[in-house]
Formats: sequence, structure tokens, C-alpha cells
Amino acid sequence: MVPGSVQKQMSVDVRAALAGRVGELALAANLTIGVAESLTGGMISSALAAAGRASQWFRGAVVAYSSEVKYEVLDVPAGPVVSSAAASAMARGARRLLGSDVAVAVTGVGGPEPEGGRVPGTVFLAVDGPGDHRVLRLELAGDPGEVCAAAAEAALEMLVAGLEHP
Amino acid sequence: MVPGSVQKQMSVDVRAALAGRVGELALAANLTIGVAESLTGGMISSALAAAGRASQWFRGAVVAYSSEVKYEVLDVPAGPVVSSAAASAMARGARRLLGSDVAVAVTGVGGPEPEGGRVPGTVFLAVDGPGDHRVLRLELAGDPGEVCAAAAEAALEMLVAGLEHP
Repeated sequence: MVPGSVQKQMSVDVRAALAGRVGELALAANLTIGVAESLTGGMISSALAAAGRASQWFRGAVVAYSSEVKYEVLDVPAGPVVSSAAASAMARGARRLLGSDVAVAVTGVGGPEPEGGRVPGTVFLAVDGPGDHRVLRLELAGDPGEVCAAAAEAALEMLVAGLEHP
Repeated sequence: MVPGSVQKQMSVDVRAALAGRVGELALAANLTIGVAESLTGGMISSALAAAGRASQWFRGAVVAYSSEVKYEVLDVPAGPVVSSAAASAMARGARRLLGSDVAVAVTGVGGPEPEGGRVPGTVFLAVDGPGDHRVLRLELAGDPGEVCAAAAEAALEMLVAGLEHP
């Protein structure tokens, strides 16, 4: 069993490495990146902003923590905010609002309580880019902090995959 | 000299404690909170989202990392993006866009290079709320990571001060 603080530092290091890779690929492809995140609360944005030469490829993020921000700022359609439709709309909304070439979005239930009929650990990710729209559903294990960290990591991996295989 | 990893964990803990206090005060006053952050890249938002019962008082954030997002999304007036005018506009813009009762904004130069004639460590903070608008200029010491951490901490302290003495 890895102690909590060591495990947290490992998660931070994994996110930093993935964010660095996003930056290299974005620079090579001359693409800018935006984020819409909910349960991860700014974790994905923080990792990207701290990566190398971020000012050249990172536009910014909308942290749509409340449902109202998802509906009103990102134009998520009426309905459940933890769903593939919501994740898709968040990615499209972030791309439009932030003016980025590519955007990644995350919405999910951190727990410990279920939300809107979804069990804790249910996470939807979406990437929207030129000629590219993908949505992924994950069921992540762990306490709320672990679910957030794993969701942020998965979102960064999804961005890397999309940039590596456009 | 405190090792870097220990120092980073201490910064995270200070932010978590301040964010918890913001949450308690916001709940007691029945106010919602929003954020606009630039150089801190999502650090303030992450701390608030991780605080207790955040879904009851935290609306979300705009990470306006690029100047375009500051101008186009937050309605920062034409001119330098590291200035008291920009910080003021970011706080007002976040409050309007996110629909929060109170918003805090941060813009600054992390370094190591100067930006727009501002030396590294120059940071402007603003809080906008009902009948309350304050702007603060700081000159922070340290490497870019330390400047970001100190700026995030100062923003959370400014939020706490505003909520404690409305």
C-alpha cells in the first residue's frame, strides 16, 4: 500500500508528464488546446498550464462545477449532466467559447454519494477537434480524490491519443 | 531550506485550509463563488472544488490563460492583460458569466521572463461582489512555481477577508 501523500505526488507527476506530451504534440501540429472540466475542478487545466511553453498552445479552461454553468455557459442540453451527451456538448462548448482548435471535457460522479442515478466513479470524457469527436465512458474505482485524479489522467491520455493519431 | 516536494505539499495544504474557510463563510452568508484565473492556471479552482460541500457554493471558473480568452470571454478592455484594469474586468466578467455572487480574479507574470513590461512576480488580484470591489497589486518573490502558489494563496486570502468583513 502506497502512502496517500506519495500516491498523490505520483498522480501529480503522471499528469505533468502527460501534459508535457500534449504540449509537444500540440506545438508540432500547430493546434491550440482548451478544457471543460467538472468533477476534476481545475486539475486538468493546472497540469496543462504548468507544461512547457503553455502560452503558445494552451488557451484556457471552463471549470463548469455547477450544473447551471454547464447549461448556460457551455450550452449543455437540458437533461442529465453526467452523460455522454453532456460531455460532448461540454467539449464543443469549450472549443467554441475558448476558441481552441481541440477541447477535452470531463463530467462525472466523484462520490461518495450517487448523483442523478449514476454510481460514484462514473465518468464521461469527450474530445472535440477538427474532424474528430470522441466520447468515452469509464467506471473508476476509489475514493473521490482517486476518481478525480484518475479522470484527469484519462482525459490527458485521450488528448494525447487524439493528437498522436489525428 | 525546505525540500521542494515538502514545500509544494505545504502550499497545497495552505490552499486547502483557505478554500475550506471560503466554503464555510460562503455557506454561512448564502453566497456562491466564481473564479477567473490566468497564471495560476486552475490552482485556485482546484482548491475550491476540493473543499467541503463545494457543490452548494462553488459555481466554477474561467481559466483565461491566453490573452484572447481574457478579451473575448471575460470582456477585459483592450490594453495590458497584467494590470489592475484587467484584474477588475476579469472578476466582473467571471461573476457575470458564471452567475456567482462573488468572484476573485488573478493575473500576473510568473516568469522567468518579463511580460508586457512587467517584471516576474507582478500580480494583480481583484474581488467583485455585491457592493464590494477591491484590487490588490503584489510583487511576489520566487521561481514561477512559487509565484503561482503565492498568488493562489493571496487570492484565497482576499476572498476570505471579503467574506469575513462584507
